[in-house]
Amino acid sequence: MFENIKICPGYKFAGVDCGLKTGGGLDLALLLSDCPAVAAAVFTKNRFPAAPVIYGRKQLAEGHGLRAVLINSGNANACTGHQGEIDVVTVAEVLAAALQLSSSEVFISSTGVIGEPFPVTTVLEGIETLVDAVEIKSKGAKALESAANAIMTTDKVPKIAGIEVETSQGRVTLTGIAKGAGMIHPDMATMLAYILTDAVVDRQTWQEMLLRVADKSFNRISVDGDMSTNDTVLALANGVSGCCLTSSSDLEILEDALLQVARELALMIVKDGEGATKAVEIMVVGAPGAAAAEKICRSVANSVLVKTAFFGQDANWGRIIAAVGYAGVELDPQLVNISFDQVRVVSGGIRDPQYREEDGSAVLRQAEFSVKIDLQSGEDEFTLLTSDLTHDYVSINADYRS
Amino acid sequence: MFENIKICPGYKFAGVDCGLKTGGGLDLALLLSDCPAVAAAVFTKNRFPAAPVIYGRKQLAEGHGLRAVLINSGNANACTGHQGEIDVVTVAEVLAAALQLSSSEVFISSTGVIGEPFPVTTVLEGIETLVDAVEIKSKGAKALESAANAIMTTDKVPKIAGIEVETSQGRVTLTGIAKGAGMIHPDMATMLAYILTDAVVDRQTWQEMLLRVADKSFNRISVDGDMSTNDTVLALANGVSGCCLTSSSDLEILEDALLQVARELALMIVKDGEGATKAVEIMVVGAPGAAAAEKICRSVANSVLVKTAFFGQDANWGRIIAAVGYAGVELDPQLVNISFDQVRVVSGGIRDPQYREEDGSAVLRQAEFSVKIDLQSGEDEFTLLTSDLTHDYVSINADYRS
Repeated sequence: MFENIKICPGYKFAGVDCGLKTGGGLDLALLLSDCPAVAAAVFTKNRFPAAPVIYGRKQLAEGHGLRAVLINSGNANACTGHQGEIDVVTVAEVLAAALQLSSSEVFISSTGVIGEPFPVTTVLEGIETLVDAVEIKSKGAKALESAANAIMTTDKVPKIAGIEVETSQGRVTLTGIAKGAGMIHPDMATMLAYILTDAVVDRQTWQEMLLRVADKSFNRISVDGDMSTNDTVLALANGVSGCCLTSSSDLEILEDALLQVARELALMIVKDGEGATKAVEIMVVGAPGAAAAEKICRSVANSVLVKTAFFGQDANWGRIIAAVGYAGVELDPQLVNISFDQVRVVSGGIRDPQYREEDGSAVLRQAEFSVKIDLQSGEDEFTLLTSDLTHDYVSINADYRS
Repeated sequence: MFENIKICPGYKFAGVDCGLKTGGGLDLALLLSDCPAVAAAVFTKNRFPAAPVIYGRKQLAEGHGLRAVLINSGNANACTGHQGEIDVVTVAEVLAAALQLSSSEVFISSTGVIGEPFPVTTVLEGIETLVDAVEIKSKGAKALESAANAIMTTDKVPKIAGIEVETSQGRVTLTGIAKGAGMIHPDMATMLAYILTDAVVDRQTWQEMLLRVADKSFNRISVDGDMSTNDTVLALANGVSGCCLTSSSDLEILEDALLQVARELALMIVKDGEGATKAVEIMVVGAPGAAAAEKICRSVANSVLVKTAFFGQDANWGRIIAAVGYAGVELDPQLVNISFDQVRVVSGGIRDPQYREEDGSAVLRQAEFSVKIDLQSGEDEFTLLTSDLTHDYVSINADYRS
């Protein structure tokens, strides 16, 4: 499936089954850089950050170069108190020893159930297998796919994206993996993403670039409006290409490439939203301010009534207009236009006289479409990618854990 | 079912089928007061108020005594522009003429699909039948039940509550009907409620009383977090008991009674939430401010992940803590305690050492239970009633309209 993906040189990958998931399957992933990589990260804003998030924040603030990233699924190590924090350190130290690294070079992520004690012994046992695995056949697409599989929880498919770009200093590669599914929300939610490059880039530049990119990609998706305790986007640049990117045109090329990989991963996350059958772009334009545009966009994208209508392939624009109306933004209903793809549905706050239900329904039968809400009250815009709310979403989330 | 309900004297009721609903059934209701009643109302805060809401707001501001309330289901007359507003006036005038009233004495509500042209001809034809119906057998529980049935959309059961109380001036009665189901949200959402009394009460007092009561009842329920274009709570006091309530103790009795009726209706609405199988009270206590308590409470009550866990009878407190954490309130995770009914689940931000999964599960298997979140950071509290998110919710909302 991912044979032709561009794989960034200078990294090794592995994914193993160490017995963390009740149903079995790969659950422990390793991303290993051949040399210390410059690291940038964005973390969840949840007030209950998981233990690995607390650890990672401190690590990033200290500015360590990173060699290894260990990610487990099956247990989030969240709401596990002091013991959870101790467990992260233990895991980092054991992995560092096995790889002959310093523990400050090891980054940890966890995803899965919140509040269960972290199964540290199981993970420590798994590390041995993982380190063995990374020593053989760990550079190809297969190894990367194992890692991408091992970080999945309720995801149905692994998420991998890669790109090569030419800079004035030569060719650089970016490769990313991610997991998503439920709890996906702007501001980072039960979402993990790791993007690797072989470019040489300054740490501060790389961090600022990731912040801008996350804001235009991972922070623009919404599955259920919930925000998890564990969300993390980590970007590593290990410099093995030797291409030192400092000119503004080279940095622009890098940022565009980073954005492209991030957006591809974000789109995969929405499409694989728990039980999702549709990926829908909600665009608010003509808003009287950036905050107003965002508020209205989030109100529509997170409305469960709107999302169930998408699932029902029902061009029920009344629910969209209701969600626009309760977003808490002052607006003039008589100026609002709404289109589904190219089909104008609402003009001046009421049904467009030319609109025919069958045209709207035809748009909604597609797997991907856009909803454009034009407030005609300014120049500001905001866009979110969202999914529909389905029977499978309810099944997955009513049964998950058990 | 409602034979023993206390029915307020001085009002007549009727409900007829005028052909507004695709599937048939009662769809037009009339509440008729024997004499002009003092009116108080609370309306939706949605920026796209439906035509009857625009009309009703103006009417209430003018302070007219009301004689008749006409409510149709099947079409919300929302996002129908200028024509929708004209239709409300036409309907009010035709009903007024049929009942020999002034049109300013006629209050109109609509509920149903948003954005479809209002079927004014059908409603006008229905008025004739309705006026005939109200002239025969219109004072009993059966007539009231017809009216309560005629205002239903996706509701499964009619909602009626009544109470008699003794004041220093004699006995007064309060009777209410309501409709709810989807889109129920604090701040009034696709919810209609009408509460009638025979007390004599000053208009301003009555309005202030209703505001306080709505805030403690209808604004404390949440089904899906959506807020509709049509929500209305109307309270009428026609004075036929002759009990003139002016002393603070009598007004307190009246307010308590009004609150009791409003809370009963609100609970019925939550229990009949689209597809709901559970009614859950979310209580936030020990908060460092009223706004903080409310924010956290709404965040938990509206989380679709929490609501699907309730449906799955899964004591997944991690989702609750995640929703507390993303509410946007500064708090110390290590102080947070959570209980399901009397079962302590979380102490100091982590799983209580005494907690056993089977105890939590036993609570969640009940049809009604409470979730108490103690922040231990202050004295403020907030409570909401919510329901679970089920397969039937998705079915109802994916298929509604079609």
